[in-house]
Amino acid sequence: MDVTKFAIPEVIFGRGSINHAGQCALRLGAKKVFLVSDSGIEEAGWVDKLTDILKSEGIEWVYYPGVTSNPRDSEVELGAELYRKNGTDVIIAIGGGSALDTAKGIAILASNGGRIQDYEGANRVNRPLPPMVLITTTAGSGSDISQFCIITDVQRGVKMSIITRTLVPNISIVDPLILRTKSETLIIHSAVDALAHAIESYMSTISSPFTEMHSLKAIDIILESLPSAIKTRSLDALEQLSVASVSASMAFSNASLGAEHALAHSLGGYFDMPHGVVHPILLTAVMRHNARLAPEKMAHIGKVILKKSQGNNEETALAGIMKLENFFATLGVHTKLHQELSEKQKQYLEPICKVAVNDACNLTNPQPATWNELHNICMEVW
Amino acid sequence: MDVTKFAIPEVIFGRGSINHAGQCALRLGAKKVFLVSDSGIEEAGWVDKLTDILKSEGIEWVYYPGVTSNPRDSEVELGAELYRKNGTDVIIAIGGGSALDTAKGIAILASNGGRIQDYEGANRVNRPLPPMVLITTTAGSGSDISQFCIITDVQRGVKMSIITRTLVPNISIVDPLILRTKSETLIIHSAVDALAHAIESYMSTISSPFTEMHSLKAIDIILESLPSAIKTRSLDALEQLSVASVSASMAFSNASLGAEHALAHSLGGYFDMPHGVVHPILLTAVMRHNARLAPEKMAHIGKVILKKSQGNNEETALAGIMKLENFFATLGVHTKLHQELSEKQKQYLEPICKVAVNDACNLTNPQPATWNELHNICMEVW
Repeated sequence: MDVTKFAIPEVIFGRGSINHAGQCALRLGAKKVFLVSDSGIEEAGWVDKLTDILKSEGIEWVYYPGVTSNPRDSEVELGAELYRKNGTDVIIAIGGGSALDTAKGIAILASNGGRIQDYEGANRVNRPLPPMVLITTTAGSGSDISQFCIITDVQRGVKMSIITRTLVPNISIVDPLILRTKSETLIIHSAVDALAHAIESYMSTISSPFTEMHSLKAIDIILESLPSAIKTRSLDALEQLSVASVSASMAFSNASLGAEHALAHSLGGYFDMPHGVVHPILLTAVMRHNARLAPEKMAHIGKVILKKSQGNNEETALAGIMKLENFFATLGVHTKLHQELSEKQKQYLEPICKVAVNDACNLTNPQPATWNELHNICMEVW
Repeated sequence: MDVTKFAIPEVIFGRGSINHAGQCALRLGAKKVFLVSDSGIEEAGWVDKLTDILKSEGIEWVYYPGVTSNPRDSEVELGAELYRKNGTDVIIAIGGGSALDTAKGIAILASNGGRIQDYEGANRVNRPLPPMVLITTTAGSGSDISQFCIITDVQRGVKMSIITRTLVPNISIVDPLILRTKSETLIIHSAVDALAHAIESYMSTISSPFTEMHSLKAIDIILESLPSAIKTRSLDALEQLSVASVSASMAFSNASLGAEHALAHSLGGYFDMPHGVVHPILLTAVMRHNARLAPEKMAHIGKVILKKSQGNNEETALAGIMKLENFFATLGVHTKLHQELSEKQKQYLEPICKVAVNDACNLTNPQPATWNELHNICMEVW
C-alpha cells in the first residue's frame, strides 16, 4: 500500500451533544467566539440555544448571519473582515454545508489573507487556521468532518473546491436532535449527498482500508434507514442517518471523490442546484461508467446494496446500480436532467463538462473522465 | 444514543511512511526534538534512519534511549527532566508500546509537573502536552493511536492506566516495513494484543457505531492474516496486521476495554508479563463470562470469527469462542496460567484480582467483574 493519510476532527456525537459546544470552545482557548449561521437555523431556535450555552460559560460572541445556500466568495470576505475587526479568537458555525463552508472560508482568509480564489485546489493554505467547532444541522454535507470547503466564485459561476488538511476542524459536534427540525426534502437531499460521498469515496483511486470500511458501512445504513426516517421521522432512524453521514464524511475527506462530484460541482455552480438534487440524477449513470473501469470494487458496493452477490462481479455491480435506481425512484425525487433544466439550457452542458474535468474530484475517479464522457453521461440522463 | 466521543490522531500509514517524520515534526513547530526509543529498535537501525531524516530537515535532537519493557515511573521522570533541561520542543518516539508509553509519560510530566502517579486514572491531566509524533514498530499496542498510557509503579508493583484525550498524539506514523525486522514471537504477541483490544472494545458498555465498525473489522483481519504473516512473513500480510492494529486502536482508545485487560494490567504489573503472553490465557475465559452478560453482542463477534451464525445468539457466541481457542492453540502459545506461573505464585492471584477490579478497564466491561469472578476465571485457566 502506498502511503495514505487519515485525518478527522474530534467528533462529539449524540443526542444533546450541542450542550458541549461551550466547553469545546473554552478548551480551544475561546474568549470571544465568531459565530456563523443562517436565517433558517436562527428561526428554528438553534442560534439562541447556542448563544445561551456560550453565555453560561462566560464566553462572548459576535454573530455573523450572512450565509446563503451555495455560499459566495463575497460572503466569506465580509465574514473574515468582521472576524478580524472584532478581535474574535475561535470560530463556531452551526448549520448545513453552506454555513460550515462559509466558516471555513472565513477561517482561511482570517489567518492567511488574500482572496478566497487564491486557495482553490489542493493544499494551497499555508498558515494554521483559527480553532473551529463545527455543528452540523444536516446529515449529509460532511463539512463538519472534512478537509473540503466549497465556495462559489460568483463572477466565474464556478463552485471552487478548496481541499487541505488544515480545513479539518478541531471539533465536530453532531446532535441528531437537531435533525428533527428539518423538512423531509432536506433529509432526503442530505442522505443522498452522504450516499454519493460513500460511493464515490469507495471507488476513489486513493481509498484506503480506513476509508473503505466507512464508505461501505455508510451505504448500508443509508439504504436501510432513509425510508423509515422519512416515514416515521423516528429519532432512531434520524440518528442512524447521522452515523452514516459521519462515516461517509470520514471516508471522502480522506479518499476524496470522483467524476460525479466533479460534474455536480460544475453543474451546481452554473445553475445554483444543490448537491442533493443533482446526485439522484447523475450518480447511477457515473456508477455504470465506473463499473466498466473497476468492476470488482463496484461489485463490493453491489453486494452491500443487494446484501448478496448476484453472479460475477459485473453482474453484481450492475444489479446493485439497478436496485439503487429503484431506490431513488421510491424517494420521489427527480432522476432526469430535463426535470431540472429547460431545453434551452442544454447548450450549457458542454462548457459545464469542460469545467468539470478540471475539478479536483475528477482526478481520483477510477479513471479521470474526459469532457466527452461527462457530456455523454449528461445526455444519457437528460 | 448517549453522547459519545471519537478522537484519533492524524494517521500516516504505509510502506516508507517513516520518511514523513521530519516534515511532521516541522509542521508541529520542531526546532529540537526529544527522541525516545529503546536498544532493540536502535540495534535494528531505525533510530539512525530517523535521525538521518531529522538531519535532512535541519532539525536538532536529543536522544533518550532509556526505555525498558513495561516502562517504569523512574524512567518517565528522568526523561521529563532531560526534556526540560535540553530545551526540546517536540517529542518523537519510535518503538513498541513501551517506548511510546514512556514518551507519553514524559510529555505529561514535561508540561504538567509532579509525579506520574498523580495522573493515574481517567482525565487527570489538565495542561496541554508538547506536540508528539509516535512511530509504532509493532502492530499491537496501539499506543500511537490511543488516549492510554500504561506506566508501572515499581513500588506498588502495579501497571497504572493513565487515560485522557490529551494523550492522543498529534500524528501517528505506521510503517509496515518496520515490522519486517520483528521476530515471530513479537508478531504473534502484538497481533494477539490487537485482537484483545478489538474484542474487549466491542463488548465495552461505551462502544459506539464508530468504534464497533473498527473492532469487528480488526477481528476479521487478524484471524485472516496472522497465520500467513507467521508462515510467509509476506509484507502484504504484515501490512494487514498493521491495518487491523490501527483499527483496533481507534476502537479501544474511544470505547475503552474490559475485565480481561483489567486483569492483564494487574497480573502483568505483578509478574512483569507482557500483554501478548497474558491474552491467549485469559481472553476466551473472560469472553465466556461476558457471553452470559451480553449474548447478542458476543454473537456478533462469533459471526465474524465463524463467518456465519451457528444457531441462536448463545450458540453462535460460544462456537466463536471455541474457534478462537483453537486459533490460539495453533499459534503454539501458552494458554494456561500454570505454564507461566509456579504453584507457589498461585497465592498472589487473590490480591492481584482485588487490584484488578479497580482498574479503569473493568468499569466498561458488560458488567464490572467482582474480584471473586476474576479469581474464578484465573482458576478456570490455571
